[in-house]
Amino acid sequence: MPYAEKINLQEKYKLINEHWSPKIIGELNGQHVKIAKISGEFTWHSHENEDELFMVIKGTLFMDFRDRTEIVKEGEIIIIPKGVEHRPRTEKEEVQIMLFEPSSTINTGGIVNELTKNNIEHI
Amino acid sequence: MPYAEKINLQEKYKLINEHWSPKIIGELNGQHVKIAKISGEFTWHSHENEDELFMVIKGTLFMDFRDRTEIVKEGEIIIIPKGVEHRPRTEKEEVQIMLFEPSSTINTGGIVNELTKNNIEHI
Repeated sequence: MPYAEKINLQEKYKLINEHWSPKIIGELNGQHVKIAKISGEFTWHSHENEDELFMVIKGTLFMDFRDRTEIVKEGEIIIIPKGVEHRPRTEKEEVQIMLFEPSSTINTGGIVNELTKNNIEHI
Repeated sequence: MPYAEKINLQEKYKLINEHWSPKIIGELNGQHVKIAKISGEFTWHSHENEDELFMVIKGTLFMDFRDRTEIVKEGEIIIIPKGVEHRPRTEKEEVQIMLFEPSSTINTGGIVNELTKNNIEHI
């Protein structure tokens, strides 16, 4: 029988010591649950085929859009529809985020650069 | 252009005044993000085609399986694979949970009873 695994976010965050390097912590219905520690400014990008959910677990996330910035705090979620350009960013502190997105999602969307992560690890 | 909406969980929980009545707070890639306040014991059920994610936002969730119970605390997640019988339950306190599951998911799975909720509201 498939096993229902319990996942503790803070224990998982302890296993991450690099910024902007998402790790898979769960999988369901073709979707991945990922977590990342982020700090500073990511690259502008969009995902052609995937909507993407960010949940802030710790800290404050600044989500830049071409026409505005949304400030996303602990316990808040923002869903980025496919095709919408966005740039996640932090100020000062390191931020812990959780992501829900299809397993096909590439972190930098349609852009490939030094921030692109392939072969995302399951922790 | 589709709009990236920010969602504050605690503001959404304030809109709920019934137990075991999930509400949709977001949608992406054919999946729903739902929240619920729960108290007491739900019905044993399984979902034939859908894996289901529970995240505990406040309180302690007891997830009964036929062979064991998992205690899921704040900041913890449990993913129930399709076909696995489970029974969410609380002790004493009201618990706030967040769910991530395909939009086709029925709360009571293959069981239809007084706890079954159709036409889930988007709040």
